[in-house]
Amino acid sequence: MLVLASKSPRRREILREAGIPFTVRAAEVPEVRREGEGAEEYVRRLAREKAHAVPAADGEIILAADTVVVVDGEVLEKPAGAEDASRMLRQLSGRRHAVLTGICLKKGDVTISDCATTLVAFAPLSEEEIAAYVSSGEPVDKAGAYGIQGLASKFVEGLEGCYFNVVGLPVALVYKHLRRMGCGK
Amino acid sequence: MLVLASKSPRRREILREAGIPFTVRAAEVPEVRREGEGAEEYVRRLAREKAHAVPAADGEIILAADTVVVVDGEVLEKPAGAEDASRMLRQLSGRRHAVLTGICLKKGDVTISDCATTLVAFAPLSEEEIAAYVSSGEPVDKAGAYGIQGLASKFVEGLEGCYFNVVGLPVALVYKHLRRMGCGK
Repeated sequence: MLVLASKSPRRREILREAGIPFTVRAAEVPEVRREGEGAEEYVRRLAREKAHAVPAADGEIILAADTVVVVDGEVLEKPAGAEDASRMLRQLSGRRHAVLTGICLKKGDVTISDCATTLVAFAPLSEEEIAAYVSSGEPVDKAGAYGIQGLASKFVEGLEGCYFNVVGLPVALVYKHLRRMGCGK
Repeated sequence: MLVLASKSPRRREILREAGIPFTVRAAEVPEVRREGEGAEEYVRRLAREKAHAVPAADGEIILAADTVVVVDGEVLEKPAGAEDASRMLRQLSGRRHAVLTGICLKKGDVTISDCATTLVAFAPLSEEEIAAYVSSGEPVDKAGAYGIQGLASKFVEGLEGCYFNVVGLPVALVYKHLRRMGCGK
């Protein structure tokens, strides 16, 4: 009934842990921010495009999402390499940033679009901590070059908003909209 | 070097995911709140007692913790059974509560005691959701009768503070104090 249009193993894990049954049908869309496009506008558009990029059978609900990190007005996506990851982590060190996940649920011709924002406070990171973290390989495929659920957990002093949004999917928000669409109890 | 004085598999998992090496030496102390003892006072005392209840070799750092949920001035610990779990979940439904974890790090005659507080906002829960969640067995061994990392993740609209504190161990706070004690880089 629910189809996750994402290749992210973390989004899969979040739905599984929450006990929400689903299948996966990954979407491929180019992820390029348009000139002047705001972060929220961007993640909402990508979620929408991903939701529309996969075929849906009758009665299926397609769920797509896109996550970015925003710090100082700059949008951080996945790092291009180790150098880029280090640069991003230096930017996040000792301050707060925002994590935005745009989601789109699509059932037939009905679409629900939403966006969750979580503020995350990082402890100051030493160059040694950044180097060790980058060499762990964890930053590679993650927006903002960190995974809150892994080795970077110890750097996160606190947050405001949905934790699972930072991992990649604001599951309470998804669940609320799924119920509106008549899915789940 | 670091010894976790706790039987909780979730605390173990948090340290493991954060990449902090440790061994386990579980402490057994009676968990009974004294008359008039405040929640923070209580979890700090239990953490201290647990830290002192396990033998420590030279150079070892003992880490102990205790977590409770506070709602409406009432302290919720582990539920006594299914009925008690349902009652707690009804209390948490549609509102905010606080999760407090007292921690104690002990190295020789030096002790660091601290407490983390996280505010958690629950979505309104239907009786069906409560019944399904209780029958999943997840509430059994958890303060406040829920685990934020499991099936209850979809009920949590947001939080303020450390997420891992809600799971059972405020890992960034632990890490900060470990560094003060000369452990970790």
